[in-house]
Amino acid sequence: MADTGLLAALVDALRCMPGIGRKSAQRIAYHLLQRDRDRARHLSAVLQSAMDRIGHCRRCRTFSETELCALCGSNRRDQSLLCIVESPADVQAVEEAGYRGLYFVLLGRLSPLDGIGPEELGLEQLDAMLGEPGRQEVIVATNPTVEGEATAHYIGEMVRRRGLRVTRIAHGVPMGGELEYVDSGTIARALAGRREI
Amino acid sequence: MADTGLLAALVDALRCMPGIGRKSAQRIAYHLLQRDRDRARHLSAVLQSAMDRIGHCRRCRTFSETELCALCGSNRRDQSLLCIVESPADVQAVEEAGYRGLYFVLLGRLSPLDGIGPEELGLEQLDAMLGEPGRQEVIVATNPTVEGEATAHYIGEMVRRRGLRVTRIAHGVPMGGELEYVDSGTIARALAGRREI
Repeated sequence: MADTGLLAALVDALRCMPGIGRKSAQRIAYHLLQRDRDRARHLSAVLQSAMDRIGHCRRCRTFSETELCALCGSNRRDQSLLCIVESPADVQAVEEAGYRGLYFVLLGRLSPLDGIGPEELGLEQLDAMLGEPGRQEVIVATNPTVEGEATAHYIGEMVRRRGLRVTRIAHGVPMGGELEYVDSGTIARALAGRREI
Repeated sequence: MADTGLLAALVDALRCMPGIGRKSAQRIAYHLLQRDRDRARHLSAVLQSAMDRIGHCRRCRTFSETELCALCGSNRRDQSLLCIVESPADVQAVEEAGYRGLYFVLLGRLSPLDGIGPEELGLEQLDAMLGEPGRQEVIVATNPTVEGEATAHYIGEMVRRRGLRVTRIAHGVPMGGELEYVDSGTIARALAGRREI
């Protein structure tokens, strides 16, 4: 038999998670039923309330349970720096690198074919944030894809109109990477971005 | 910042799933929040009702929403064959290989040090099933681990006392496997189990 009824429904529902195929979903379902029903019930409850209660910060648009996220609400962040990223996961990544300024989360990238324009990315909201007192530099950290680059270019124009300094994060050979295994596009960027030593 | 509050709780709760570490859990949480809240809510609901409503078949002990599972309730299974496996996931695996008899699921293996004896494995229940009319052969398909082998040996004795034929699934080089990459224990089993061609 194939799994039937609720078990099949559970395996199927688990596949909403990225990276979880049929086989992994099956393994997870069996594991939870056999050994971890309490933690599975806990996951169910947390999942429900997270989906219901986590919204977006009204200022920077990252995920937040409160109207203003912990970062925007903190007085220990460098208010002169604003880093623009595509997604809340990117905020986490940049935080781990030691950045201590503010963020603005686009929740996407410019993609006219998919109907994603300046409005969907909250660029009006961003413009308001650019106008706040004390702002000095905007770091554009969108992904180095065609759409991410186009978005960076568009935002660069916006920021310059405000008279602020605007920078783009560097792209090149990743730390610990070996030239031999790095794609030619990345090496071309690394060459173009070379610096005196 | 590290994730805080509900988001951190969600990432943490997702780690109840086998194979999901901190990084994957984070990726899943962000993905669901950003793109798939409806499916995440659906997963939450299915997870809850699966944990509450899926129990065990009173006859063969596999997972079942009903008192008797679909396999035990079917009249199209070969009642003369009984295959003994360690877990409900094994039932699925044996089904996929084309087996069409009945099953008995131990939900574990003999492991005296962990306090798992004949009672925990439902061997009394198994004995009752051995005594049902028409039963001819019992196939022991516990895993080829030390504990699985000990369990197979113990069950073999039980079945022989009932005067039924008892067999063990073959162990050897897996189909498509290459000798060069197979461990020596498996090759030893394959040699010992050699057959005329």
